Amino acid sequence: MSNNRRLSGVLAPVVTPFGNDLEPDASLLIEHCRWLLTQNAGLAVFGTNSEANSLSVDEKIELLEHLVDAGIDTARLMPGTGCCALSDTVTLTRRAVELGCAGVLMLPPFYYKDVSDDGLYRSFSEVVQRVGSDELNIYLYHIPPIAQVGISPSLVERLASEYPDTIVGIKDSSGDWSNTSALLELGLDDFRVFAGSESFLLRNMRGGGAGCISATANVNPAAINALYSSWQTAEAERMQSELDDLRELMQRYPMIPALKAVVADFTDVAVWCNVRPPLMPLTETQRRALIEDLDQRNFDMPGIAG
Amino acid sequence: MSNNRRLSGVLAPVVTPFGNDLEPDASLLIEHCRWLLTQNAGLAVFGTNSEANSLSVDEKIELLEHLVDAGIDTARLMPGTGCCALSDTVTLTRRAVELGCAGVLMLPPFYYKDVSDDGLYRSFSEVVQRVGSDELNIYLYHIPPIAQVGISPSLVERLASEYPDTIVGIKDSSGDWSNTSALLELGLDDFRVFAGSESFLLRNMRGGGAGCISATANVNPAAINALYSSWQTAEAERMQSELDDLRELMQRYPMIPALKAVVADFTDVAVWCNVRPPLMPLTETQRRALIEDLDQRNFDMPGIAG
Repeated sequence: MSNNRRLSGVLAPVVTPFGNDLEPDASLLIEHCRWLLTQNAGLAVFGTNSEANSLSVDEKIELLEHLVDAGIDTARLMPGTGCCALSDTVTLTRRAVELGCAGVLMLPPFYYKDVSDDGLYRSFSEVVQRVGSDELNIYLYHIPPIAQVGISPSLVERLASEYPDTIVGIKDSSGDWSNTSALLELGLDDFRVFAGSESFLLRNMRGGGAGCISATANVNPAAINALYSSWQTAEAERMQSELDDLRELMQRYPMIPALKAVVADFTDVAVWCNVRPPLMPLTETQRRALIEDLDQRNFDMPGIAG
Repeated sequence: MSNNRRLSGVLAPVVTPFGNDLEPDASLLIEHCRWLLTQNAGLAVFGTNSEANSLSVDEKIELLEHLVDAGIDTARLMPGTGCCALSDTVTLTRRAVELGCAGVLMLPPFYYKDVSDDGLYRSFSEVVQRVGSDELNIYLYHIPPIAQVGISPSLVERLASEYPDTIVGIKDSSGDWSNTSALLELGLDDFRVFAGSESFLLRNMRGGGAGCISATANVNPAAINALYSSWQTAEAERMQSELDDLRELMQRYPMIPALKAVVADFTDVAVWCNVRPPLMPLTETQRRALIEDLDQRNFDMPGIAG
């Protein structure tokens, strides 16, 4: 039985604010989520760009509870819940379902390398069975450049065939269009394929995809959403090209601290620049150069709270 | 102030037993640790071969408490405590110190790739300062084939220079003798360099190393210890060669399930074969072939409880 809450559109892997003591700041996170919702971006909290893997399971659960308590729409929430340990993935996924999240984005266990598809199948299958809820909607998270452990199209097909009402989509952050294309060509029923960045948004929509989940949606959600809404118009190619330009600019800097530096600048809240180790914040020189680059393009984050 | 508990010798990254429900079995773990101690092997519980990264922090703490409650000598314990999240690493490391463990083996945070030495320095440094104990002895864990994120000799030097009484050694599982050699040549005061397998034990001892921490010490500790004790004798080359032969045999199979299959066979406890996903147990064909290979060599685990 499907619970009919499959997601589509543009989602941001929401950056996670830390105080100077490196503790997560729930209030700032809530504010940023509220702003993203005003820009019609969904909330893929606890993604790679959220520094999710620099947070403990307890820290993630506590933040998620704060978001829900603050009235953030659970229909727009797709928290990342895939951890190295089966027990952690089950604990976090179960809590996300209890809190009413529309979906979860699930990394494969990523410590052990060269694991078999049978082993990965067993891992996802155990999570589905242990959580054991009709309300569970899993979006697989394929990001081989970072996780190193990937999720092949044949494994996707096997999982979605065995659990058609639970394994409902995938985020493809391979950076390899041929892989996204192979996923679309699987032709799975109502299966949501998200591109891992807006660079592939137009191609993904033309191929029957569901949207994108992109780092830069933290700062540029309106323009990405505009393309998502208008991909069938004559303006689409130009819009894609403009999105590519801004992304190219951001990619000259380490992405996570760069996103945070931009949010810090527009909100005038300096702690937004903080990152947990092993990441490092931008140097002051980098930060100034980035902000100047954006100023020259008249880049704005309209309505973000200062 | 040094607490004078630096470790040396042969340690096993102790395999972790799971029941058929995939829950850790503390009693079986205690039994295996007791046997390893009778063979003069130290206990690097929660290493890569322990499936440590398939266990939650809470599961690891609970197992460690069981070991200490059972009277396992804390002077022989070097639990792995390095996690992706700073908060997890601090929690687990702090508990290991409270329980009296002689040392901890610390992976770098391993999710984010291509991180800078400055970021890794900051990570280890935060752990040292947050745990804030004179009783903390950290052995860095360099295992780039699996963690992907490595710890360069220059980073080792920087950390050991800043924290000479806390950063007291390293396990080098690079599989690259030139790296181990570079670590030995740093000439750090009383710094303990462990080879990541017995394959490099003789060379490591000749270069001034402290011993080895090796998967196969779970099943073959006496022979590895014999070389450790006799590395300056005329028999050393022959002993190294015999160790290499057995390791080569084991490496024909996936190491973790193979180790567990051997322990299962000698203890006659079938659940020892269980592994958590994403790993898979040996197939029955593999298992039989391995046991037959070992039988043909008259391999034994003398005194292990059946």
